[in-house]
Formats: sequence, C-alpha cells, structure tokens
Amino acid sequence: MTDIIQIKPIGIIKTSYEDPSGMPIQGRFKDDVTGRIELFPEYWDGLKDLDGFSHAILIYHFNRAKEANLLGRPFLEDVDHGIFAIRSPKRPNHIGISVVRIEGIEKGAVVFSEVDILNGTPLLDIKPYVSHFDAREDVKNGWIEKHFEDGSYPKRVIV
Amino acid sequence: MTDIIQIKPIGIIKTSYEDPSGMPIQGRFKDDVTGRIELFPEYWDGLKDLDGFSHAILIYHFNRAKEANLLGRPFLEDVDHGIFAIRSPKRPNHIGISVVRIEGIEKGAVVFSEVDILNGTPLLDIKPYVSHFDAREDVKNGWIEKHFEDGSYPKRVIV
Repeated sequence: MTDIIQIKPIGIIKTSYEDPSGMPIQGRFKDDVTGRIELFPEYWDGLKDLDGFSHAILIYHFNRAKEANLLGRPFLEDVDHGIFAIRSPKRPNHIGISVVRIEGIEKGAVVFSEVDILNGTPLLDIKPYVSHFDAREDVKNGWIEKHFEDGSYPKRVIV
Repeated sequence: MTDIIQIKPIGIIKTSYEDPSGMPIQGRFKDDVTGRIELFPEYWDGLKDLDGFSHAILIYHFNRAKEANLLGRPFLEDVDHGIFAIRSPKRPNHIGISVVRIEGIEKGAVVFSEVDILNGTPLLDIKPYVSHFDAREDVKNGWIEKHFEDGSYPKRVIV
C-alpha cells in the first residue's frame, strides 16, 4: 500500500512569477494577472468541453520546494501549524492545487486568471470546478478565519 | 520538464465502499456515511490545528483505475466529454480530489463524512478547505449545470 506512485506532467504552467516575490498567497487576491497552461500535444484532446466552465482546479507539482516539513508557519501567521492545516508548498509529495478562472481556451492551451503559481510549474491534472461539488457553505476556516474578520481581506496577501 | 515525479502515499483511506456500486458520484449527495483516514505514523504531527476546520480537501490516488483516456462518458451523461472537463478516475495520472466534512480527529486519524472514495485508496495529501480560497460564486458549470436545474439534484447520484 505504500508503493511509490509515478506521476508524469501533462503540461507546463507559464506565469509572470519567476519567484514568489510579488505573487499573491491565493490567486483571487490579485485577479488582474493571467497565466497560461501549455499542455503537451498528446493531451490536447482532453480539453473538449472545458470551455463551458468558468473555473478549473489545477493540480500541479511544487517543483521548487525541496523540503517536506510536518509543521510550517504560513505567510499570514507568526506561529506554526500542522502541514495538513496549511497550504505551504513544503509538504509531503509537494502537490499543489489552485482554483483559477478560465479566460480562454486555445488549441492545447488554457489562459486563466487568479494566478498564484510560479512560472514553469509542471501541471499534473485539470479538473472542472463544479459549484455543486466544490463550493461549501457553513465552513469553519480554523486559524485562517481571524485574518478575514468583518468580511475583509488581510492587509498582506502579496508575498 | 517532463521528468517522472515520484509520489509516496501518506496514509490509507478506509471507507465502506469496496467497489463503486452504491457510492455517490460526489460525497455530499449521500452525507450519512463516514470514512476514516489512517495516516502513516511518520505524518501524524502534520495534523496539528486541522481540528479548527470543518472541511478538508483530500488528494488521493485512483489506484483501481488502470485506463487513462482523453475522453470519457460521465455517469450523468450519454455523450463523451474531454477528460479535463469531467471528474472520471480514468484520467492521466489518476489523481482524485474530494471535499469532505471533518467529523473528528484522533491520533493519526481523521473521521470524515461526504464520502465518495473507495476503501483502501492511497492518500497523497490533506489540505484545509478555506472558503476564502476555495469557494467561488458566479460559477458556470458547463455540461453539468443542466442536471441541477431549478436548484434540484439529479435523480441518479448513486452509482
């Protein structure tokens, strides 16, 4: 059950963020930037009908993260939390997910906004975001909630 | 850039679903069933502070799926869609995600409801579900939307 699983990137995510500096902690906090998924040609046919969706979930490899820690200190905090209670890249398996807004689909490529992904990140999967499946109400946001009091965003959301 | 990435399960997901029969197409369509994540001991410390969250995003390996197709016919449909516009397990890299409701956390284990995962599925990651990051409004749900007209659920949501 603990066998190693081999994963192969299906494409590359191109963005303007060469390093985390200037990148939002979540893409929706800086929504005027676009990125571009370039799928490898053997996967192009899989994009059929994605153009009917406004949002997608990208699953990718945090390939610049070399550490895998069990505790981490998020950008917004000055205390440590468990790695499974934060979204840090320095986690076991270095898998990242982002909900992005689809701006356009070209042959083998997807242009998207709400970008929080470094340039050159290997893409592992694209799933359609389905509000009936993925949006939840009555959510308790743990340690994060205090940073969003009164419905406002935290002051520091850009790295 | 197309290097193989090696992933190692962090635990096992235990559920009552030995095969897809009787399982909902999404966990929230049958919310009276619970499952249990059993983390391998070396990852237990990573659960710190997850208990403040009501929901988590599980990332796991569709280990029973052997095929990887570019088109697929979802349970609700009688036409094919691109694999990146559906949530089928028969996809490149066989990576699955589910939003689940956290019911309780024990030492090294997480009990959850809203289960749509087969028993014995290898777990790759747990992320806290954060409404400010993951919930979207103004969503266009593509081919899926017609199955949810008038705010009702589809009649067939159990496999």
